[in-house]
Amino acid sequence: MPLNTLGYAAQSATSDLAPFRFERRDPRPDDVVIDILYCGVCHSDLHTARNDWGWTSYPIVPGHEIIGRVREVGAQVTRFKTGDAVGVGCMVDSCRHCKPCDKGEEQYCKEGSTFTYGGQDRHDHTPTQGGYSDQIVVSDRFVLKVPEGMDLKGAAPLLCAGITTWSPLRHWKVGKGSQVAVVGLGGLGHMGLKLAKALGAEVTLFTRSKGKEADARRLGADHIVLSTDPAQMAAVSDRFDLIVDTVPYIHDLNPYLPSLTTDGTLVLVGYLGGLEPLLNTTPMVLGRKSVAGSLIGGTKETQEMLDFCGEHGIVSDVEVIGVQEINAAYGRLLKSDVKYRFVLDLASLKG
Amino acid sequence: MPLNTLGYAAQSATSDLAPFRFERRDPRPDDVVIDILYCGVCHSDLHTARNDWGWTSYPIVPGHEIIGRVREVGAQVTRFKTGDAVGVGCMVDSCRHCKPCDKGEEQYCKEGSTFTYGGQDRHDHTPTQGGYSDQIVVSDRFVLKVPEGMDLKGAAPLLCAGITTWSPLRHWKVGKGSQVAVVGLGGLGHMGLKLAKALGAEVTLFTRSKGKEADARRLGADHIVLSTDPAQMAAVSDRFDLIVDTVPYIHDLNPYLPSLTTDGTLVLVGYLGGLEPLLNTTPMVLGRKSVAGSLIGGTKETQEMLDFCGEHGIVSDVEVIGVQEINAAYGRLLKSDVKYRFVLDLASLKG
Repeated sequence: MPLNTLGYAAQSATSDLAPFRFERRDPRPDDVVIDILYCGVCHSDLHTARNDWGWTSYPIVPGHEIIGRVREVGAQVTRFKTGDAVGVGCMVDSCRHCKPCDKGEEQYCKEGSTFTYGGQDRHDHTPTQGGYSDQIVVSDRFVLKVPEGMDLKGAAPLLCAGITTWSPLRHWKVGKGSQVAVVGLGGLGHMGLKLAKALGAEVTLFTRSKGKEADARRLGADHIVLSTDPAQMAAVSDRFDLIVDTVPYIHDLNPYLPSLTTDGTLVLVGYLGGLEPLLNTTPMVLGRKSVAGSLIGGTKETQEMLDFCGEHGIVSDVEVIGVQEINAAYGRLLKSDVKYRFVLDLASLKG
Repeated sequence: MPLNTLGYAAQSATSDLAPFRFERRDPRPDDVVIDILYCGVCHSDLHTARNDWGWTSYPIVPGHEIIGRVREVGAQVTRFKTGDAVGVGCMVDSCRHCKPCDKGEEQYCKEGSTFTYGGQDRHDHTPTQGGYSDQIVVSDRFVLKVPEGMDLKGAAPLLCAGITTWSPLRHWKVGKGSQVAVVGLGGLGHMGLKLAKALGAEVTLFTRSKGKEADARRLGADHIVLSTDPAQMAAVSDRFDLIVDTVPYIHDLNPYLPSLTTDGTLVLVGYLGGLEPLLNTTPMVLGRKSVAGSLIGGTKETQEMLDFCGEHGIVSDVEVIGVQEINAAYGRLLKSDVKYRFVLDLASLKG
């Protein structure tokens, strides 16, 4: 029978998030029932709650950086057992038979993957609801194993901020000898620094703000470049194999292109929209440079990233808050006032 | 002693090209002296003669699709001998010690390659002059072997139009099973169709003009898509691994991005400048798609392309004209009134 669930939901684009009771589905044979412990707070949660992208149906329970423990598993589930520490990211299903799905890159599913919240279950067509809640029911393919001993609070943001930066680092084959730059030091950016460094790259942070130097170095940056300083920008001309641009709003890419080396790629992971001012193709043609996009990551790569983080002792830098603080946290998120990710402690739901 | 040379030069941005006497350098030990037989007429020649890019020094002898026969070789030259059919493309020198040069990708030389015309010799600092002339002196590294039996008139455009489309086809690993589209059916586009087809790809032409169907199919297109027809564009959604965009003026890339499949790349080979209207990043992020540029090709790839064309019986479709017709040809070039490349017969210089 359906599971009575308590979460925090937005009822409209202008209302604060507030307690909300709803039902999770009666578990199917391939389902894992998870008691949620922690859930990261991603900028997309805020965009969705406020209907910034125009596709939100209310009520909506956000949250796609979910860490919990398995309470029970369906009859067909063999990879998990009661008590396992597990994670759920941005997707909970996909078509499972297209070319990207076959490669474990379900984020590029040809039929569209099912998002963890704001989506629609592929079987019963009920709306999916996210991790600002006490439990979730997810098909085993989309449940990730959390490595033994990993800090569970810090693990939550790996499920979105972590994989979103990991996937382009791996796709563009970053490793020892690579020159990598990260644009922006937020939830994504701070994971980009940690992961690129652990992969063996020489890592540079592009930032518009002074005063981030010490933090950036602690997180893995070998160099900090103030992108508002033409002399500093000129000094990194022709340097980077990959620039991971985490900036989530419209911004000018042209100043970064000269800092790519021949065959270099600038990959956008945080911004959907028009590139204004106009992107100038001259450095792209003259240096065979690319501007690309990348979307989160699939189950295969997400598990690989979690395992890598486990081996390298990497988690996110988080500020743990009670679920009652979410509306204040959204306000601070808009001012980038968090180092570097809020994580909800769902035990607070019972408070 | 310097070689007294006859060519056709522009004396200013507004003057017609006219006969011009100048000196080629006294051949050095690594030089090859070439009697020029044919020279293709590239749109860049026209841009340079008219100073469209603002960097032209006058007088300027254009021409970088050069085919000729070796008249003599310097003492250090071992790859060529008198009588060999040879080609010279867009470059005649480079630093020869940077990473791209080491890979034979001199077009991306970190110190800047020396262009065949409008450049400056790296030793004596004299201006370089192109192939609208009766002879040229070129360091052996930048001289290409023309395969036995190849039609020399049709071979000339391979040195720029051919390599400019070949290089991205190879760099992005086009072969059997690849889905390739070419945007624009001009000098570059018609070579793109031939080369992509010969590499084993399924080939589509994007064009804005009706009536090119028969010609496009003859050149290698399996499909023709009218880019002004939304229904035809929708029918090729999610199809192409690579789109080679040969359009040499500002144009909207956004309609093409949905036709790239996951991990697909649109590569610009003909346009330097701002991308207007704004490039929208949404399809790039949602499908890990790239927009890239590519510049001609290096000596290694150019020789590979010539050898491939020799094996596959590929040359350019050309209209051979006398050098006295160059000004009229420029007028027709501006109207795209050529199928598909003018080639100067330099024997006409003696007329």
